[in-house]
Amino acid sequence: MNQTSEFSLIKAYFSALTPDRDDVILGIGDDCALLKPPADQLLATSVDTLVSGVHFFADVDPYRLGHKSLAVNLSDLAAMGARPAWFTLALTLPEANSDWLKAFSAGIADLAKQHHLQLVGGDTTRGPLAITIQATGFLTAHKAFRRDAAKVGDKIYVSGTLGDAGAGLLLKQGKLPLANLTEPDQQFLLDRLELPTPRNLLASQLVGEIQSAIDISDGLLADLQHILTASQVGAIIDTNALPLSAVLQKLPAEQANKLALTAGDDYELCFTMPANTAGVLEAALDGQVTCIGEITEFSGLKLLPENIQQNLDVNPGYDHFS
Amino acid sequence: MNQTSEFSLIKAYFSALTPDRDDVILGIGDDCALLKPPADQLLATSVDTLVSGVHFFADVDPYRLGHKSLAVNLSDLAAMGARPAWFTLALTLPEANSDWLKAFSAGIADLAKQHHLQLVGGDTTRGPLAITIQATGFLTAHKAFRRDAAKVGDKIYVSGTLGDAGAGLLLKQGKLPLANLTEPDQQFLLDRLELPTPRNLLASQLVGEIQSAIDISDGLLADLQHILTASQVGAIIDTNALPLSAVLQKLPAEQANKLALTAGDDYELCFTMPANTAGVLEAALDGQVTCIGEITEFSGLKLLPENIQQNLDVNPGYDHFS
Repeated sequence: MNQTSEFSLIKAYFSALTPDRDDVILGIGDDCALLKPPADQLLATSVDTLVSGVHFFADVDPYRLGHKSLAVNLSDLAAMGARPAWFTLALTLPEANSDWLKAFSAGIADLAKQHHLQLVGGDTTRGPLAITIQATGFLTAHKAFRRDAAKVGDKIYVSGTLGDAGAGLLLKQGKLPLANLTEPDQQFLLDRLELPTPRNLLASQLVGEIQSAIDISDGLLADLQHILTASQVGAIIDTNALPLSAVLQKLPAEQANKLALTAGDDYELCFTMPANTAGVLEAALDGQVTCIGEITEFSGLKLLPENIQQNLDVNPGYDHFS
Repeated sequence: MNQTSEFSLIKAYFSALTPDRDDVILGIGDDCALLKPPADQLLATSVDTLVSGVHFFADVDPYRLGHKSLAVNLSDLAAMGARPAWFTLALTLPEANSDWLKAFSAGIADLAKQHHLQLVGGDTTRGPLAITIQATGFLTAHKAFRRDAAKVGDKIYVSGTLGDAGAGLLLKQGKLPLANLTEPDQQFLLDRLELPTPRNLLASQLVGEIQSAIDISDGLLADLQHILTASQVGAIIDTNALPLSAVLQKLPAEQANKLALTAGDDYELCFTMPANTAGVLEAALDGQVTCIGEITEFSGLKLLPENIQQNLDVNPGYDHFS
């Protein structure tokens, strides 16, 4: 079998993995996919590349790599308030290893099924391992979550817990003190790093209720700063209010806080809500989100208590340029 | 400047290069682009990756690389009969070299302007040089060119001339006899390899007139075979009718024919037309296309004259897995 046929087989393998959607008129197998967009909706689309040795370790479990490759794009759709629909996969591989491919594609397929997302096209090339996925979803124009829509007085919320993925990375790098961490604790941190849960379900509950959001892929401070810059506002963050997992709370408080504020790869949502509706929605969301501060008129990002603001602008995660 | 900011600058650099379209509600700079698809049209979308050392030489002129990276995707839209609209760029670079980036992005931008195509999103990552572009266009559902729509008795056409890009590759590899080739001849072949003209203008003239097409990226025989397989038909090709450039005609006839039949990277269109309308359209297209054969009922691909069918299934181009 020559390499062209070998790689063609990969394409054939991927084509049946994800759910069939009625709006996919022609899927994998022609020069283009043909897609029928919904009437009166906008398309939201996002592309992310993960490169071996930069965004993941070359020996990462392929199921987890498949999951994460799609999860980071789903997270971008969640951050915009879009319902996931279609994605394409551009996969560059040094060789066609069927065990690796089976696990990798299963990681993608399982997550795609959960979100009724169809793989509609792709390209498989030979070269250094890298994955580029572009995901597209739908939303109603005036309901999009935008970085430039935060208002003075809005409460600032985050979903889930922060810093776990960053701690997972330190663990993989052998840089985390293990004294207090059980085996399950360590597994929890690795899972948070390698199997992130994109917050699309939460996003669907927030549509119509909020105007401004971002996903935390580069760290809370860096990503919140994008909202502040785009909206021309400032923020106060109460670092005592940061949601920390039970495992992260076992780390020294200073390290845990630094991870929660600056570590990347959490894929939680950060969003703002008008103060007058925040309480009711927060209650309805039943513990999924935590208020961590408020949008202010002065520019800049102020952390409370005052003594915490020290040398926090370092992202201890991978090099992450997205 | 740390690497994150360096790469962020690249993103900022790319954002203003291409034309502003009214259907781009939100372009580069948020978690997703927001796009307004046209009413009553389908989207046609295609993704291609070019990897350094596999699809291009690492020292290729960056302007030409930018042009070709977008051209291969435009060619897929042409092969479907779709009008180009939007594209995303996932660029993986070992380092941020501003001269290289300036030329690369100019190559993309010049071609994008010609086709009124807007860059709506992207990702810039550090790693081995590779470019993934996804382009999206619009078409009317029943007017799509599909691989599965060729009919027995249809005439088979190709655009332009065939085999020039393959000869250009042999030239770069030092494998082409140069005795008969002038400096301008050699430049012509290199231009055909590195600056392919996607046939979107021709495709727009064919919309409503033809039902089946493909672009010739992997070689005429390999790509025509995709139409035959999908349409469950066969074909006869008259190799004496293959359109060869004046430069290719200077090569030994056997080599020229082999390049025209099997070499990749031409990005010409191969399409079929009902015999009863073919003559009129061919005349209207005024030399842009050449009839090279006919769709037949028997399966398989038969070459005339009989003695030509020998060991032709080798693609002398790059490894090309798209």
